[in-house]
Amino acid sequence: MTIRLGANNYGKSRVRLLRVSKQEGRHDIKELTVAISFEGDFETAHTKGDNTKILPTDTMKNTVYALARQHPVETVEELGIQLVDHFLTYNPQVSRVRIELKENLWSRLALGGKPHASAFSRAGDEKRTAVLNGTRENTEIRAGLQDLVVMKTTNSAFDHFLRDPFTTLKDDRDRILATSIGASWLYPGEEVEFGALWHGVRQTLLEAFAEHKSESLQHTLYAMGEAVLNNFENILEIHLSLPNKHFNLLNLQPLGMDNPGELFLPTEEPHGLIEATLKKT
Amino acid sequence: MTIRLGANNYGKSRVRLLRVSKQEGRHDIKELTVAISFEGDFETAHTKGDNTKILPTDTMKNTVYALARQHPVETVEELGIQLVDHFLTYNPQVSRVRIELKENLWSRLALGGKPHASAFSRAGDEKRTAVLNGTRENTEIRAGLQDLVVMKTTNSAFDHFLRDPFTTLKDDRDRILATSIGASWLYPGEEVEFGALWHGVRQTLLEAFAEHKSESLQHTLYAMGEAVLNNFENILEIHLSLPNKHFNLLNLQPLGMDNPGELFLPTEEPHGLIEATLKKT
Amino acid sequence: MTIRLGANNYGKSRVRLLRVSKQEGRHDIKELTVAISFEGDFETAHTKGDNTKILPTDTMKNTVYALARQHPVETVEELGIQLVDHFLTYNPQVSRVRIELKENLWSRLALGGKPHASAFSRAGDEKRTAVLNGTRENTEIRAGLQDLVVMKTTNSAFDHFLRDPFTTLKDDRDRILATSIGASWLYPGEEVEFGALWHGVRQTLLEAFAEHKSESLQHTLYAMGEAVLNNFENILEIHLSLPNKHFNLLNLQPLGMDNPGELFLPTEEPHGLIEATLKKT
Amino acid sequence: MTIRLGANNYGKSRVRLLRVSKQEGRHDIKELTVAISFEGDFETAHTKGDNTKILPTDTMKNTVYALARQHPVETVEELGIQLVDHFLTYNPQVSRVRIELKENLWSRLALGGKPHASAFSRAGDEKRTAVLNGTRENTEIRAGLQDLVVMKTTNSAFDHFLRDPFTTLKDDRDRILATSIGASWLYPGEEVEFGALWHGVRQTLLEAFAEHKSESLQHTLYAMGEAVLNNFENILEIHLSLPNKHFNLLNLQPLGMDNPGELFLPTEEPHGLIEATLKKT
Repeated sequence: MTIRLGANNYGKSRVRLLRVSKQEGRHDIKELTVAISFEGDFETAHTKGDNTKILPTDTMKNTVYALARQHPVETVEELGIQLVDHFLTYNPQVSRVRIELKENLWSRLALGGKPHASAFSRAGDEKRTAVLNGTRENTEIRAGLQDLVVMKTTNSAFDHFLRDPFTTLKDDRDRILATSIGASWLYPGEEVEFGALWHGVRQTLLEAFAEHKSESLQHTLYAMGEAVLNNFENILEIHLSLPNKHFNLLNLQPLGMDNPGELFLPTEEPHGLIEATLKKT
Repeated sequence: MTIRLGANNYGKSRVRLLRVSKQEGRHDIKELTVAISFEGDFETAHTKGDNTKILPTDTMKNTVYALARQHPVETVEELGIQLVDHFLTYNPQVSRVRIELKENLWSRLALGGKPHASAFSRAGDEKRTAVLNGTRENTEIRAGLQDLVVMKTTNSAFDHFLRDPFTTLKDDRDRILATSIGASWLYPGEEVEFGALWHGVRQTLLEAFAEHKSESLQHTLYAMGEAVLNNFENILEIHLSLPNKHFNLLNLQPLGMDNPGELFLPTEEPHGLIEATLKKT
Repeated sequence: MTIRLGANNYGKSRVRLLRVSKQEGRHDIKELTVAISFEGDFETAHTKGDNTKILPTDTMKNTVYALARQHPVETVEELGIQLVDHFLTYNPQVSRVRIELKENLWSRLALGGKPHASAFSRAGDEKRTAVLNGTRENTEIRAGLQDLVVMKTTNSAFDHFLRDPFTTLKDDRDRILATSIGASWLYPGEEVEFGALWHGVRQTLLEAFAEHKSESLQHTLYAMGEAVLNNFENILEIHLSLPNKHFNLLNLQPLGMDNPGELFLPTEEPHGLIEATLKKT
Repeated sequence: MTIRLGANNYGKSRVRLLRVSKQEGRHDIKELTVAISFEGDFETAHTKGDNTKILPTDTMKNTVYALARQHPVETVEELGIQLVDHFLTYNPQVSRVRIELKENLWSRLALGGKPHASAFSRAGDEKRTAVLNGTRENTEIRAGLQDLVVMKTTNSAFDHFLRDPFTTLKDDRDRILATSIGASWLYPGEEVEFGALWHGVRQTLLEAFAEHKSESLQHTLYAMGEAVLNNFENILEIHLSLPNKHFNLLNLQPLGMDNPGELFLPTEEPHGLIEATLKKT
């Protein structure tokens, strides 16, 4: 019997950064969290404690700061590309660089009906995301979003499902549908308009969710993914991960009351989870 | 030596509820979390295990559902008033009822530039709050908000402060100021327009934060509270709790770069915390 | 109408620290989180932006480090006393200093049946706490613990309670009782053995919880507090805050099965909350 | 261009359960959280809203309860096997069942030096885990643990690492090493003693961490994995995921003090992350 090192990687997570850009009295801000991960020739570090091929994760952190200073790029995807290129160029021992970026979204405060030049509020939990996987051959870029919580109070049903002896759920032609959208989609390369596309995909996802006559969360997931693939030529595939955030109709009969679709119990657990990838072929 | 029962209370926390109101095709939603707490004559429950004066906390939960069904009130304050009245009326053993309400805020989705009739997204972590303290004499109503995260990138300084041998902080005439606004304010009674006032106070707090030429977070806190008391006759006092969410200028000199107010490090800990009450007299 | 500054305070929260003590090959560790808060003469800071009486919260943080280095004290209470004394001595503008300390507990790893000299594991979420309130007159010291989660599977009932039309809960002579103990107790002064007392009180709370024939969580709370006051001369009063972490018997009848006290549903919300202070008189 | 449904799955997450077993006055408890996920023939559910092959996730939850009642198995792995077998047997439309189980660990309270028959305390954040992947061909069983936080205060170095122009980290021959162990290992089949093996692997991981003369976290990870593979014939491979929880030496020079390896700053972000799989060949 021999013991062998299999797949392995190392890196730095939760590298945080706020950039403030100032132009003619108008400030713009961007708050990011970055994670960097390397795959490569790290066998002797594991087996012998030889660190000569190990760039410190502290240096990865410094590199995020340095490149953000050198290249004041507009989008998470562009900063990701700079990081992949830098790390692959200067680290021959590395075969794959993975960069994950999350942008905490801020809104400009509106005062007296006008957007303020230098004051902002956090726009909720939603995050704009990008994941880049760079090798010596190519770099795969996936953009996305997380934690965009949505609800629709009509046009949602779930019935005619498979039943077995443990099934107690009743058919429902009028239920609440709520989820926290997690989506990521694949671009064909670096030559796309990252900002415009992200906003377009986000709006398409919301419209499809809102307008769909849903027979299940799977059904709505597919409609959301299909709308994105149909509307955006530059998107080759999309992955959606949708928890089913259940809002259950409260049974008020023990209290001597009816409840005609008015009061619901928000629950955190248990929850359904629906995931799928849609691709163009 | 005798052992004596001092101040005590019991109740139910995290009672959750979603109400859907439907009018001519337009749906409105309101998501609440309620906590109820009783003070009263509960000595024998503690000392003898006698439960005859203990209304179960499970019943408190049911009562929230029942009153929300009977009185489809518009605001958290109105539901709170119903709950205080109900519990005091039917529970002679109770001397004080405390109701805390938090509303998770949802926004109507905008599709094709128009607000959607029945689809919504969560509007972030911010919560509208109300705390009612009801006794046989009167009911004190405090409205508020929580977790409203804001930042300003100019007009913030902190200098000429007190120095001692452990002081290493430098004077700063141009720093970032960020906080998560926690505010609660006292109304003179039940005859105020809860909805309009809440929105008015919120906007006043944001404007004061954005426009203030800040010499410290204390200075800005006072300006925010003063603006509210000056603008709203029906508000007698306001309490503000403002963590100082530090964004520290990154020192890039070790990387051979300058950093003229462009890149900052967001930090969660440690953080400052400034709290004060302002009153009309 | 005049606007007046009422109660106010400021300080630094989440100041963290790990101390490693090394003696003849044996290492001891202590991990702390400290919060400092000042009350005093800060009116002009609020109203005029005058910082000359404001010691920076950054200096408070530095002072924690410095005093922890100068006085390698054994317990959270002793470090708290040093901090109160220091801040009151050097800050005439301050009338009250509040210090909150939380200790994250670590256990020594046991290898081959023996405690290891320099390797440790986190002992869970439980925290040892201390809160000191120091003024020009005296310093009040409260020790405590938080997040000590316990459960008993017998000797717990809740019946013969008050019923109203919204009560649906059934009498129960054999239920699970679970809570997360939050306790704090008052010492008569600084001349007590903080370490030994803390361990003694903790064990007394656990024994009283385990052994009590409970008619309600109020009943058990009182028994726990009474045991502490009876057993420890140096403890003048104790406050207990006990959430009722409900584990509800699962109804398996719809699945064609009985459930004789075997399977329960752990729930996070809603939950009961029982709080009381017991005092010696 | 055609749009095609790619990889997809659905299921129920955060299904919770407490089992109480009673034997001759001694109670045992086990608290579990289960997640179930199906892959299979679900295309028409997505594309047509046809639910006839969709077993509700609510039924998956009920099945966990029912099987836990029918088969009062001892270990998470055994409950997982029952669930995989049940779902594959009764659901021809399903090609793969994935079951994830997490056990929240409880300790028996010790009173008067003896373990108590029916009172328990939570043993921290650590979780025992199992992940089963069952197909028509076979079932892969991985056991593991999560959130086991450990620290060593000696025998840890990191030096002679790769340097580039952004490297500012200094060589360190005596640093703190801390991590939160996440481990999962593969069994050859169902015929292993799940309970004894889990406790054995856990102890081996802790011993290897404590005793290793570490040149890096990679080096220690490998030593931990190697010890497990060497000591347990029935373990074919092991995956370790180790965040580097940094405790940085505080620089007290600005405060006029030295700090000879005594006071450290615990940090949550950024953090390193080291992951690797070791296999027998």
